[in-house]
Amino acid sequence: MKEAQKLGTTRAAANTEAEGFKGLPEKLDLDPKAAYLHFTSNETIHGVEFFSEPMPPAGVPLVCDASSDFISRPIDVSKYALIYAGAQKNAGPSGVVVVIARDDMLERTPANLPVMLDYKVLAASGSLHNTPPCFAIYMVGLVLKWAKKQGGLTAIEKTNRTKADLIYKAIDGSGGFYRGHAKPDARSIMNIPFRLPSEELEDTFAKEAKSKDLIGLKGHRSVGGMRASIYNAMTVEGAQELAKFMAEFQKKNG
Amino acid sequence: MKEAQKLGTTRAAANTEAEGFKGLPEKLDLDPKAAYLHFTSNETIHGVEFFSEPMPPAGVPLVCDASSDFISRPIDVSKYALIYAGAQKNAGPSGVVVVIARDDMLERTPANLPVMLDYKVLAASGSLHNTPPCFAIYMVGLVLKWAKKQGGLTAIEKTNRTKADLIYKAIDGSGGFYRGHAKPDARSIMNIPFRLPSEELEDTFAKEAKSKDLIGLKGHRSVGGMRASIYNAMTVEGAQELAKFMAEFQKKNG
Repeated sequence: MKEAQKLGTTRAAANTEAEGFKGLPEKLDLDPKAAYLHFTSNETIHGVEFFSEPMPPAGVPLVCDASSDFISRPIDVSKYALIYAGAQKNAGPSGVVVVIARDDMLERTPANLPVMLDYKVLAASGSLHNTPPCFAIYMVGLVLKWAKKQGGLTAIEKTNRTKADLIYKAIDGSGGFYRGHAKPDARSIMNIPFRLPSEELEDTFAKEAKSKDLIGLKGHRSVGGMRASIYNAMTVEGAQELAKFMAEFQKKNG
Repeated sequence: MKEAQKLGTTRAAANTEAEGFKGLPEKLDLDPKAAYLHFTSNETIHGVEFFSEPMPPAGVPLVCDASSDFISRPIDVSKYALIYAGAQKNAGPSGVVVVIARDDMLERTPANLPVMLDYKVLAASGSLHNTPPCFAIYMVGLVLKWAKKQGGLTAIEKTNRTKADLIYKAIDGSGGFYRGHAKPDARSIMNIPFRLPSEELEDTFAKEAKSKDLIGLKGHRSVGGMRASIYNAMTVEGAQELAKFMAEFQKKNG
């Protein structure tokens, strides 16, 4: 919103801050004359994910920041006017953004936007207006070939759900020792934040996990706690190891 | 200039188009109240390079696009208020820009600039406001280590001059068979465009050169002819091979 305010007026269709960003908005306050409705399909800090798209008023284009769940599951592209996704979670290395834009959206670039953000110019030049980030694009190509070989996005979603289920079961079966953040119907299959009974136990958890090569489990600095990020690159075996460790840790400290 | 016009008024301090962009401007028409004086230290299409900086009026910051000769020779950073350089010529892979900015320049970012172009925010966050292009930054680090090992920029400039001299000698000693584009005092040590007596001979030259693994010699599509780009990655031996091929080609076709 801060960025959009540099170009025009903005309005929040919903705000779930009061309940701690735990769920999807129950009601959207939509403007039928809005230039677009924007949402972020997966929110990595609180682990909240949209599994179906919010519905904009008739004629209002739907725009999505899909950076953190792009290539993790099938999406119905026909519902979107524009999708943009930084590659660095599932699709490739950091330093490249994949944009899927409906032709009519390309006609709506504000004239004062720097050319590197002008999708119309980029599309007209086949993404070659400037020297593009060749290596990152090449890597995205390899990841897409890998995704096809896995059986495509349907198969990849299945794997991701298997991984997420393992961790959510470890949380739900802990009798309150582990507490998940997101409401069950909004639970992300990419990022799973959870808390332990005390910050001291969280520190011990992180340290012991690290000694077993279970790394990157500290939550985002803005919220603390733990967070398991299980992007495409995480294996089912990796999720199993974490679930097993969680059970063992609880037995010792619960 | 086109990009700058989106943010403010611009003015050309000089224009060498009438003489075909062959040299450096002889006189600059400067505005003592300008927000900055901008120049591009090396122009890759016509092979024209500034070996000393244009002098801005007192108090006017000097800004440089050094994309195509950064890391090719020492520059006196103290003369500049801001230097920006796409890494992809000498410093690393495409997809990252190195910016050297004087502190006071960071205070002058227009408020409506997208955050990814807001150097103040990027500096304050240690270039970590967003996930940065890690791989490209890592590669730039390796190139800088390599540059140090060569003896630093003084040694690298010497090598680059040796390479450039080999090609310029092949042009100058050809009795007019090869014609260089830039005036001698503006000759780039990175890009050397030259012509042959006919477009037909240029095509034959490119084809025969390619068969000897001398590649990428066609000039920029906007001007035609030939162009030898001899960035840091080109070896002295490579430049020697090209000079030798040029002499042989002339003997056969001159």
